[in-house]
Amino acid sequence: MAPEFERIAELRRRSHRPGGSVRLGIGDDAAILRPEPGLETVVTTDLLVEGVHFDLAWSTPELLGRKALAVSLSDVAAMGAVPRAAFMSLAVPRHLDDAFVEAFFAGVLQLADRFGITLAGGDLSSSPGPLVVDSVVVGEVEPGRALCRSGACPGDLIFVSGTLGSAAAGLRQLRSGMTLDTATTGMDLDAIRSHVAPAPRVELGRALLLTSIASAAIDVSDGFSSDLAHICTESGIGAVVDAALLPTHFTLDDALHGGEQYELIFSASPAFVPRIDLVAHQLKIDITRVGRFEGPAGEMWLERDGRRERLEPRGWEHFK
Amino acid sequence: MAPEFERIAELRRRSHRPGGSVRLGIGDDAAILRPEPGLETVVTTDLLVEGVHFDLAWSTPELLGRKALAVSLSDVAAMGAVPRAAFMSLAVPRHLDDAFVEAFFAGVLQLADRFGITLAGGDLSSSPGPLVVDSVVVGEVEPGRALCRSGACPGDLIFVSGTLGSAAAGLRQLRSGMTLDTATTGMDLDAIRSHVAPAPRVELGRALLLTSIASAAIDVSDGFSSDLAHICTESGIGAVVDAALLPTHFTLDDALHGGEQYELIFSASPAFVPRIDLVAHQLKIDITRVGRFEGPAGEMWLERDGRRERLEPRGWEHFK
Repeated sequence: MAPEFERIAELRRRSHRPGGSVRLGIGDDAAILRPEPGLETVVTTDLLVEGVHFDLAWSTPELLGRKALAVSLSDVAAMGAVPRAAFMSLAVPRHLDDAFVEAFFAGVLQLADRFGITLAGGDLSSSPGPLVVDSVVVGEVEPGRALCRSGACPGDLIFVSGTLGSAAAGLRQLRSGMTLDTATTGMDLDAIRSHVAPAPRVELGRALLLTSIASAAIDVSDGFSSDLAHICTESGIGAVVDAALLPTHFTLDDALHGGEQYELIFSASPAFVPRIDLVAHQLKIDITRVGRFEGPAGEMWLERDGRRERLEPRGWEHFK
Repeated sequence: MAPEFERIAELRRRSHRPGGSVRLGIGDDAAILRPEPGLETVVTTDLLVEGVHFDLAWSTPELLGRKALAVSLSDVAAMGAVPRAAFMSLAVPRHLDDAFVEAFFAGVLQLADRFGITLAGGDLSSSPGPLVVDSVVVGEVEPGRALCRSGACPGDLIFVSGTLGSAAAGLRQLRSGMTLDTATTGMDLDAIRSHVAPAPRVELGRALLLTSIASAAIDVSDGFSSDLAHICTESGIGAVVDAALLPTHFTLDDALHGGEQYELIFSASPAFVPRIDLVAHQLKIDITRVGRFEGPAGEMWLERDGRRERLEPRGWEHFK
């Protein structure tokens, strides 16, 4: 392994982005960001642990770096904020070489470029165990306007972007030993790609805030049922979901409870349906109404074949 | 283990700090901070990996949590910035129970209270290997005034706060099996305490900035020789250190190369010596002049018993 400092010097050259909101990036005791006057700062952190969140055999180092950044960008998207800077910390097992770390950061920098953000810092350590990644993204948002989990009102409709369940189906295929290279059907390929290369909905989150459409939003990281439950709990409201409306090519279980989908769930008044259609059209993103908010706090129901059953949050919980 | 969400809810209650610069803390997709108008934002991240940076037998979970926050506060101190919010991510091995995680965060919150900052977020995961902690601190600093590594000028003197080498001596004792409970001499106790409970020099960093004393600063995380070398490299200058002046009760090797001391090294014009004496007196911190900046970039010399020898950066490098 090259010494830590040479590695940092190399990253520093590659992540340099003159101007922008990062005044001082990699290479001092701390990075210095220049906030836009009048804006609030958002900060999110996501741990990815080998053997818990990923297996090195599932993907490439580039895609893993890309995903580590994507999951944090997804949190920023769910706030309706603009991402500005990323900080990526890695505890690296000794069996992984320089080429792995370089490829990982190539993936990070590629996605950072795509969203115009700077890799402004992080930390590197060896690890006597698994690869552990902590991804931090700092962003900015108009004061008081961030899309929180707490803003859903009775009568608001529930919307979800894209499709559900593909990342869960992809995870199942990856666990069975299938990879992007060995997948043969288009559906398996889509599913695996959805798991290893999720696309954060940054533009959508931004549009939902700027058009004042969404009253609350969250990204589907734990699973639709669990993430909807977060909105219900924080907003002090219940929800009714129509199973037939859930946008998925996979099983109802995958759609309801599959994690790491990184689509956005948001609440909006029925009056905003035309505006939502316009945003969906402009961004070329499917946005589907899947239910409505109503009833007692935290009580979720699933309507299915004319019957109504309780919808339990059965998404991913790391500590279970 | 309690589910992640209950754990977060509990932390959320305990870390709540009304008013202040954190508008939304633990419990949404991201935290929201309200920057002070006109200030810049500083961000620093530090990984602590069990088996690399610490051993669970060396200390208590409270002290470990305290130290994780302290090392990031030390980076903020070295910039002369005011810390505002902390984000703490943990990958926790299954053999560690709820009580461990609670005690860890009790230590974090205790030090956070001491500096008036909010624990505003983080992430929790299980770990199939070691305990891994990523500590992130966000702070604020007057625009263009942060104490960078790049500001040292020819003729500036080299100052260091407190004493050097105790954390390295403490680490040696910890590795030999000694602990805070079994140490018998005052010197061993001081050394071990210095390693497991470092005190970040936040007030000193702030004073160095506000009084315009320091032209450059860094904290002693890797070791005096390596951290001084960072200032030399970034400032394009050399340094001459007088061995007899180094403030230490331990060996010259510990003083020069021992890491994790978390004192500040800074550069200042000789004209500021009276001002420095005043700051030292007011903050009740020893500040010692140990050399001067001069000569070609990166060239460091140690004066010792009337002879001059090359001073090599031999502090800690995680990847070696």
